Amino acid sequence: MSKPLNVSQKLIKQHLLEGEMTPGSEIGIKIDQALLQDATGTLVQLELEAMGLDKAKTEVAVQYVDHNLLQTDFKNADDHLFLHSAAQKFGLWYSRPGNGVSHPVHMERFGKPGKTLVGSDSHTPAAGSLGMLAIGTGGLDVAAAIAGQPYFVKMPQIMGVKLTGKLPDWVSAKDVILEMLRRYDVKGGVGKIIEYYGEGLKYLSAMDRHVIANMGAELGATTTVFPSDEETKRFLKSQKREEDWIELVADEGCEYDLEDEIVLDNLVPLIAMPTSPGNVVPVSEVEGKEISQVVIGSSANPGLRDFWIAGAIVKDKSINPNVSFDINPTSRQIIQNMIDNRAFANLIKAGARFHQSGCMGCIGMGQAPASGTISLRTMPRNFPDRSGTKDDQVYLCSPETAAASALTGKITDPRSLEKLFDMTYPQFEAPEIEIINTEMLVAPPEDGAELSLKKGPNIKTLPHIEPLNDRYKIPVVLKMGDNVSTDEILKAGAEVLPFRSNIPEISKFSYTVIDETFYDRAMEAKKQYGGHIVVAGENYAQGSSREHAALAPKYLGQIAVIAKSYARIAWQNLVNFGILPLEFENNEDYDKIEQGAEVTFKNLVEDVKNNNPIRVSIANKGKEVIVNTKHSLSERQVNLLLKGGIINDFKEKLAS
Amino acid sequence: MSKPLNVSQKLIKQHLLEGEMTPGSEIGIKIDQALLQDATGTLVQLELEAMGLDKAKTEVAVQYVDHNLLQTDFKNADDHLFLHSAAQKFGLWYSRPGNGVSHPVHMERFGKPGKTLVGSDSHTPAAGSLGMLAIGTGGLDVAAAIAGQPYFVKMPQIMGVKLTGKLPDWVSAKDVILEMLRRYDVKGGVGKIIEYYGEGLKYLSAMDRHVIANMGAELGATTTVFPSDEETKRFLKSQKREEDWIELVADEGCEYDLEDEIVLDNLVPLIAMPTSPGNVVPVSEVEGKEISQVVIGSSANPGLRDFWIAGAIVKDKSINPNVSFDINPTSRQIIQNMIDNRAFANLIKAGARFHQSGCMGCIGMGQAPASGTISLRTMPRNFPDRSGTKDDQVYLCSPETAAASALTGKITDPRSLEKLFDMTYPQFEAPEIEIINTEMLVAPPEDGAELSLKKGPNIKTLPHIEPLNDRYKIPVVLKMGDNVSTDEILKAGAEVLPFRSNIPEISKFSYTVIDETFYDRAMEAKKQYGGHIVVAGENYAQGSSREHAALAPKYLGQIAVIAKSYARIAWQNLVNFGILPLEFENNEDYDKIEQGAEVTFKNLVEDVKNNNPIRVSIANKGKEVIVNTKHSLSERQVNLLLKGGIINDFKEKLAS
Repeated sequence: MSKPLNVSQKLIKQHLLEGEMTPGSEIGIKIDQALLQDATGTLVQLELEAMGLDKAKTEVAVQYVDHNLLQTDFKNADDHLFLHSAAQKFGLWYSRPGNGVSHPVHMERFGKPGKTLVGSDSHTPAAGSLGMLAIGTGGLDVAAAIAGQPYFVKMPQIMGVKLTGKLPDWVSAKDVILEMLRRYDVKGGVGKIIEYYGEGLKYLSAMDRHVIANMGAELGATTTVFPSDEETKRFLKSQKREEDWIELVADEGCEYDLEDEIVLDNLVPLIAMPTSPGNVVPVSEVEGKEISQVVIGSSANPGLRDFWIAGAIVKDKSINPNVSFDINPTSRQIIQNMIDNRAFANLIKAGARFHQSGCMGCIGMGQAPASGTISLRTMPRNFPDRSGTKDDQVYLCSPETAAASALTGKITDPRSLEKLFDMTYPQFEAPEIEIINTEMLVAPPEDGAELSLKKGPNIKTLPHIEPLNDRYKIPVVLKMGDNVSTDEILKAGAEVLPFRSNIPEISKFSYTVIDETFYDRAMEAKKQYGGHIVVAGENYAQGSSREHAALAPKYLGQIAVIAKSYARIAWQNLVNFGILPLEFENNEDYDKIEQGAEVTFKNLVEDVKNNNPIRVSIANKGKEVIVNTKHSLSERQVNLLLKGGIINDFKEKLAS
Repeated sequence: MSKPLNVSQKLIKQHLLEGEMTPGSEIGIKIDQALLQDATGTLVQLELEAMGLDKAKTEVAVQYVDHNLLQTDFKNADDHLFLHSAAQKFGLWYSRPGNGVSHPVHMERFGKPGKTLVGSDSHTPAAGSLGMLAIGTGGLDVAAAIAGQPYFVKMPQIMGVKLTGKLPDWVSAKDVILEMLRRYDVKGGVGKIIEYYGEGLKYLSAMDRHVIANMGAELGATTTVFPSDEETKRFLKSQKREEDWIELVADEGCEYDLEDEIVLDNLVPLIAMPTSPGNVVPVSEVEGKEISQVVIGSSANPGLRDFWIAGAIVKDKSINPNVSFDINPTSRQIIQNMIDNRAFANLIKAGARFHQSGCMGCIGMGQAPASGTISLRTMPRNFPDRSGTKDDQVYLCSPETAAASALTGKITDPRSLEKLFDMTYPQFEAPEIEIINTEMLVAPPEDGAELSLKKGPNIKTLPHIEPLNDRYKIPVVLKMGDNVSTDEILKAGAEVLPFRSNIPEISKFSYTVIDETFYDRAMEAKKQYGGHIVVAGENYAQGSSREHAALAPKYLGQIAVIAKSYARIAWQNLVNFGILPLEFENNEDYDKIEQGAEVTFKNLVEDVKNNNPIRVSIANKGKEVIVNTKHSLSERQVNLLLKGGIINDFKEKLAS
């Protein structure tokens, strides 16, 4: 009899193509499904074009459009036409603008227990709710997967989190993941798969599990995995896809690399304070603060229940006149179901402001709050400036806390609704079969290879990337602290995202959140020295998976980063685009490098290839020091890096 | 017995404070109601502040927020807080962001037969649908009205349009106003009130009349007037306001200055082609052109019927996969009623993309179409670049034509649905009583004088305007053709509108649609010569009433405009902000002035005051010519102009 396995191990074992399942060593796995959203997808489609792909090799690949929905000029609308044409040409499903947010729509329409999924969006792990192995990664990795290549990742440690007991009234799935963030903060999950198990699971619906798996991304986890059980079956049946269900549960006696437990009965309503999802306290600690906005929606609380409970709480009451109560319905399907179960009418009647289906304010696409005021959101992230308002005050919470606060105009523990409004906790009954709406899902043709791409004037060829040189003498144009997010490296929002297919333009926004002079100084360094490096602390480039946060700095001449540690997706993106991600041998050396210092590399190609320590001489205003650095790249990655990244590698493969 | 009067004459006579009711002479009328929207309203509120107003003197004044709803940074959200605080301070109702579009909401909640209304929005005449005298004008005029001042306007000619017969199937109110635009084009209504009467009226609901009155603005008309009859009573009853109804119909034997007739039976589905609402042809003439977008909504087709008919047409069918079928519900109230009558579910099911309640794409706030593609809209305007996409291809049509085309993916005469889908024309039954939603309407307090204004960092004090000088030697920095719109003078859209309370910033967009170098050249002229003038053809500054199209050029040093003729609202705005609107004595002289010419005025103050011919010497590259010009200002206006406009006049009044 073979060794008993947990769910994550089973998923990986069934898809393992290369490597050993030893935590820390690189494995290559077969990918069954792929998911793109539009902000990252235009680049992926340009990459598929560059690769000369005839037809997607995955079982299912879907191009969603949920990010850039505010068409303030031709660019977003042009991209929608481009993505539609590319999906048809390369054999992907196309989920049209306004259809809904990728993660919940994918779960409802395409997710299958036992399958693997990569997605060019950091919240792709949401599909772990159905017993999938779902990993968010850079667009180039997704392009490679669509082209039939294995997906490479370091075998993560598997952390088993046992759920026992039952959630109290007024406490819901969002509070479970906020509790995890309270315990582990935004890098507690780095290099790990979080696998939930235990008796408590039976009180968490598939969409509740989506909430937890989705926002597991904020722990920095590789992914989150749930078993596929009777609840998974019920959910798939409610989507008229019962036939896609298989059972997938952990073997008795299986082991986890790490263990923890959450007693659900003990949880209270939690809230993440500005400006990190890891900044979690009980709602009661911040109760009473005045708010100007409440937003319900996003892939972190996408379920019919989440909107229904908000509707049930505000039913026949009035939203506080000082609060903009914004509702972002997850999908057009959910709107139909919300009409059916009266949630829509309850919300509208009480004073809600409905928006189109999509990510909206979650990625700074509208809904920026007023200066100096508090916004409460059921969303997954509150990094600085992500909302679109500088010095924003965004708090993250459950729909219960959000709806309660919308009524009072102040941050409110939803448990106090029992006294305030003489309410008992409303009980949601999921419909046996949901109304299904597939009207905006366009299937790929049998053979689209001869179709042409519709490229608007803002869609530009990718810039050429030079292979790594042996010697550099380049300046440190920026020194950063810990936990710098990709939102700070290249922010999202309506001003920036429309340039996602136009690298020279989008690169002008590189690091502007940290330093508005970065672009000019980097361009100057590129001209004068042929490039630059940047220095960072722990967990560099956490957050969103957007690969522009590597490609744009690369276009500005970024040769290397030296950091104490890296967020996983961004670390891969750097390599994919030919930026060398170095780590300090001794983290104290971080203090020895000043911004503006001149850095000299010698014999770089050989040292990287042979995994030698990489000696960096640093001239801080004349004073010379030597700092030892290293990389933790696999042989495959070293290969890619030396060529200048995956695009050059693809070109080489195509030529041969 | 007194002379029999038409409805317009009755309304004016009942409110006449100054002047004679002779077409062309200035009259001053008492204003009962005022309406602001947010794009113009922030400025009006700053003006009310400058005036030191304690409380609105009108019976009803309402601050709507329907334009700047895409909050991509702090600015729009800050303005919402500012407008809320100002409405409370100055005694206005506040219709919160997302509540709905001003004109239909005003009609539903506040409109009263027999009353006068001014609004800082060019579509204010929509309220003429209820038997009101409703005039769109610059924000300063509205500020003055709110402060209890009379509203001054030249007594218009009254054109009686007799409606006979009944609309055929698939033809609706939009086709009536498009027929008027086909006959009279965009300046055919200048200096006129259009008053509809006749037997045909009984087939036009109050909201159908709103469609016609609203888009009467596109004829350049001062306003449009309908009688208040049994249908008006039915409408007010459906809004639970039957008590606000009075009968107001034309006296038998009354006369009109001009007359026309529309035989409704003879109308066919019409469409306005790019890039003017006056460019009208039968739909059948352009049938078959491929489209990428259909948008239903705006104040030009705001009624429950308009959405219901679209829903009935697409019911159980599929929107063409190449069409973005965007629905902008007029108000939250209409959403509730659309849920109730299944229109919402029908539209969503077929593939519609729902947006928040507001003007949205109608004023370029999102919904820009893709480059080089056709967008069909039920909106009132298709001026160049108004959609947000340069070289846009926007067609204006009825909801019937729009919905039919959304199904086929091509411009489609809705009558062909009978064959294509074996349909009969769906018959709308208005609910006896609508679901009423007032949750987002905030009443003013009894006394708000002590409340303070909430001003975000982007809300700036108005710039000082200099009185008119006697002598100028200034360049012609721009020469334009006929029918230049305020959209071309200062465009709307998400890039520009957020700066509406920040004149130095917004002035950078002056005339950019026509000439991107304008700002730099005007600033240079201001520095070197102390100002500039511009030259234009017929109907200068048609379209939207936004006073920024006067205030921003003024800030850049605009002393005067010389044009063949002016659109009415803009002409008043120029005077209000101290810009002299000159007309050619002989229109042929237009050809004698080149862009770049140097223009000399002498003895200007005396000539303006005494209504002398104003001699302008013009040096075109050394060649000197003299051109005679004139103004048609009233004594009151001359007075204002010499002081540098209304703001200076108010300051003077306050000081005394």
